[in-house]
Amino acid sequence: MYDRLNCWFQGIDRVSGEAIGIFDSGVGGLTVLKEISRLLPAEDLVYLGDTARVPYGTKSPETVCQYARQAGGFLTGLGVKMLVVACNTASAVALEVLKEEFDFPVVGVIEPGAAAVAGRTRLGRVGVIGTEGTVKSDAYARAIKAHDDTIDVVSAACPLFVPLAEEGWADHRVAHLAAEEYLKPISAGIDALVLGCTHYPLLKNTLHRVLGDEVMLVDSAEETARAVRQALGGADNSGERDGCTRFYVTDVPTRFERVGSAFLGRRLEDVHQVSLSC
Amino acid sequence: MYDRLNCWFQGIDRVSGEAIGIFDSGVGGLTVLKEISRLLPAEDLVYLGDTARVPYGTKSPETVCQYARQAGGFLTGLGVKMLVVACNTASAVALEVLKEEFDFPVVGVIEPGAAAVAGRTRLGRVGVIGTEGTVKSDAYARAIKAHDDTIDVVSAACPLFVPLAEEGWADHRVAHLAAEEYLKPISAGIDALVLGCTHYPLLKNTLHRVLGDEVMLVDSAEETARAVRQALGGADNSGERDGCTRFYVTDVPTRFERVGSAFLGRRLEDVHQVSLSC
Repeated sequence: MYDRLNCWFQGIDRVSGEAIGIFDSGVGGLTVLKEISRLLPAEDLVYLGDTARVPYGTKSPETVCQYARQAGGFLTGLGVKMLVVACNTASAVALEVLKEEFDFPVVGVIEPGAAAVAGRTRLGRVGVIGTEGTVKSDAYARAIKAHDDTIDVVSAACPLFVPLAEEGWADHRVAHLAAEEYLKPISAGIDALVLGCTHYPLLKNTLHRVLGDEVMLVDSAEETARAVRQALGGADNSGERDGCTRFYVTDVPTRFERVGSAFLGRRLEDVHQVSLSC
Repeated sequence: MYDRLNCWFQGIDRVSGEAIGIFDSGVGGLTVLKEISRLLPAEDLVYLGDTARVPYGTKSPETVCQYARQAGGFLTGLGVKMLVVACNTASAVALEVLKEEFDFPVVGVIEPGAAAVAGRTRLGRVGVIGTEGTVKSDAYARAIKAHDDTIDVVSAACPLFVPLAEEGWADHRVAHLAAEEYLKPISAGIDALVLGCTHYPLLKNTLHRVLGDEVMLVDSAEETARAVRQALGGADNSGERDGCTRFYVTDVPTRFERVGSAFLGRRLEDVHQVSLSC
């Protein structure tokens, strides 16, 4: 992993044109990067976190679309071969715009999670949790029903989960109490819950404790990594070398490096600041 | 109050040149606007909430400075006679920059709160709560000690309080539990707590319950309104007419109107979207 980080210094051009671009509003998408990196270790990855304008979850679809297009444009400029929208809110409201705008594959996090839960539910009733923007868009319900329109989808916005995860309180009793409150209106009769925000995998323990083990937690990060492998031909490409990973953010990197380490499960460094807004 | 909102339609130029400009990252500064409006009802007010990039509290001083300069520039373009930085994070890190940049009075929310608490503490030990950015800047401690350097200042960042206030959970037991957790390390021996974030006045009941009535809560919004009156000559200018209030935001206004109503204590409408970033 050390090499993966440091080959940035050894040859910047080596990445261009062959990398997978991954973008998120901030650190949350690192859970997706981690899974892609685990499943496809030979791929070069370029991550962009729009930390100067995070979060997207409370912003309007119009504003999120504008930010997503700017992020996509930046990664296109680096010469990526594929764009992964590792942000549920941006996937919910901007995916079609991005697919039209760019001529390489664009993969979001909604469809992989929706396909997985539609294939696994036996009771035919599933829950979705996410940001205000994601829940309001109804994108998960539409995607799940496109697979099986007999499935009942109940959803809840959980705005406290992002700050809880970022503060390291994911297993704290405040998180437990908040989870009880958020899930109370949707937990009856479901057998699966889609974690429709890239921050939420950090809260898996708390969610399991509140819901019990009978309710499956569907992690969009894992499902998206499988979708990316599928889009690249489905082969296991772990080869002789480790791919490179580059990190870009729009605010100064300090907080991203500190908070992101918990999301990535290892130390984050050599993160570069860029400007997207003009 | 109805007239105050609607005179925007009757004569847009009437405001220019004589209005007080108030800016915040989002809805929080409405608690400051409310107090200014109460204390100085004849003043025309122009409010700008940078809702497309909210929050500022987790962003770097460099980025917050850049945003604050853009916001100040926008209000200057409208012809304000004074700028109130109704955002603790921006006051903490960008006030000096703004004072240098603009040739009208610039009033922040830190100094009024600091002066008030320094004058009122009898135990000589006070608490300050705020965003990560405000607490990290140490601006309150510096300002309080400039009044009396024998005062002990203890502070805590409370990142969950903003989403709790915005979600309408200010009096919820999740807020109570979070407050207990945040205040535990700083509550011993203090007789005053500065609410160093414009969202926090909504949590007064919860903070009182956790701290007991012996601890004064110093509300920056109220103190700032007094400082604004002072800067304008100290006179009570409530006259024959009500001033106008105009609202601008950088994201679409829907969420600002909905959430802001709780902060302002009345319905918010006729909010206009503007762009600051380019």
